[in-house]
Amino acid sequence: MRIAQLQLPVLEDKTANLRALEPWMARAADGGADLVALPEMFCCPYETPRFPAYAEPEGGETWTACAGLAARHGLYLAAGSMPERGGDGRIYNTAYVFDPRGRQIAKHRKMHLFDIAVDGGQHFRESDTLSAGSRVTVFDTAFGRLGLAICYDIRFPELFRLMALDGALAVLVPAAFNGTTGPAHWELTFRARALDNQLFCLGTAPARDPAASYQSWGHTIACDPWGRVLAQLDEGPGLQLTDLDLTYPAQVRRQLPLLAQRRTDVYTLTAAGAGRDGQ
Amino acid sequence: MRIAQLQLPVLEDKTANLRALEPWMARAADGGADLVALPEMFCCPYETPRFPAYAEPEGGETWTACAGLAARHGLYLAAGSMPERGGDGRIYNTAYVFDPRGRQIAKHRKMHLFDIAVDGGQHFRESDTLSAGSRVTVFDTAFGRLGLAICYDIRFPELFRLMALDGALAVLVPAAFNGTTGPAHWELTFRARALDNQLFCLGTAPARDPAASYQSWGHTIACDPWGRVLAQLDEGPGLQLTDLDLTYPAQVRRQLPLLAQRRTDVYTLTAAGAGRDGQ
Repeated sequence: MRIAQLQLPVLEDKTANLRALEPWMARAADGGADLVALPEMFCCPYETPRFPAYAEPEGGETWTACAGLAARHGLYLAAGSMPERGGDGRIYNTAYVFDPRGRQIAKHRKMHLFDIAVDGGQHFRESDTLSAGSRVTVFDTAFGRLGLAICYDIRFPELFRLMALDGALAVLVPAAFNGTTGPAHWELTFRARALDNQLFCLGTAPARDPAASYQSWGHTIACDPWGRVLAQLDEGPGLQLTDLDLTYPAQVRRQLPLLAQRRTDVYTLTAAGAGRDGQ
Repeated sequence: MRIAQLQLPVLEDKTANLRALEPWMARAADGGADLVALPEMFCCPYETPRFPAYAEPEGGETWTACAGLAARHGLYLAAGSMPERGGDGRIYNTAYVFDPRGRQIAKHRKMHLFDIAVDGGQHFRESDTLSAGSRVTVFDTAFGRLGLAICYDIRFPELFRLMALDGALAVLVPAAFNGTTGPAHWELTFRARALDNQLFCLGTAPARDPAASYQSWGHTIACDPWGRVLAQLDEGPGLQLTDLDLTYPAQVRRQLPLLAQRRTDVYTLTAAGAGRDGQ
């Protein structure tokens, strides 16, 4: 399965962001991609006060544009994330996935909101304007089962373990780390989730905009089930193509049977929240 | 809290291994150590057929020697691990901790046995001769609460999460990775457990013996709650002194409140096995 990760610049103009997708999609299709992954908040500056103004209901302008791009290019499109206005009036950080006919096949609302305050470093409070989802998200493609998480979600081993136990062979993570957490934790965390759960783990970030209030770390990354970095960009705009052998997780799990060796008689990890947010 | 990790050579002669401890302990004491950590199976070659012959009940020769060393030097001694013959007749890979008066204050039996078969790489089956413990182990010192795990246990995020939730500020891990898993996974896994759980994570390994059937990776390591490597040895014998500021986990947890931000309404991790192995 060939994945194209697009490390896109994000402009203030939502429509301009959507228009800019077309040539990137064409490049991905020319490169033989089966699935295209977009960054977190690819059509909206990453600033909490902006999220309400950019938010759309499911089926809105951005959703429709992405469904059309998937169908027109005949590709799976993991449409990064965008601010969603839920039926409950709340705003979510939401990732949709479309199949090659443009049908929505998955939806993940960021489950762990990014509220941090590092002394002398990054401060951010997503919860000022966003609400959190409550579903663990896996979905099936013609290539195999994939998982979906958004940025800060990757900090929580429990979520990734639950996706692995539910059969995910790769997890797609639209994400935007920053100049504090990026150099310290980005590569480490993607490698660790991939290794511990013996699956591919792919982070797709916005390109860095030196004029933005939030400085994306970029470094769009693909890690394999042995904990290796298969590919990684720097901070500028770019397209990264990676071939995933989705039979490889099973090979690694046979040689180093971590999932089977879990001591489920000693500890129990269960998901209790399915459907709670009415997605 | 100053920790001395001893990357010791392991000889076939158990008594010689015990005698060799004295000058190392003296060096650690001279260095101002509050706690000395020994490697996994520091008094027994790491070969499954050997474990039964080297095994001792709690209170045996090796246990007694370690209790005496702790008391004589007035130091906490995390006595790596040794083969234990349990009251049930089974053999365990067991870590004891002694306080500065030589009293046993903690005991951990390796909970995840090392059974792997990497194609073209390391093969090993601890379960041929060993049984697994079933307790999550934390213990209190004058400096704060610590956790205890053994080698392959570190592969399992659930165990480390449970220790963190039970108040561990640092986890001591006697361990012996090898030439396959060492370069691929050792540093990555210690850094990830430390970062995800926002605690110190220290791995203490035997020195490499080129003549041994199992080649220890060495690389005794200390990682901090921000995911940094504070110190790391190479493969030869050595003593590593590291100062741990046990107020630092709370500082990191305030700035990046991962433990408090876990979505316990969506997923639940519980320990069910306390006391099950009759330790």
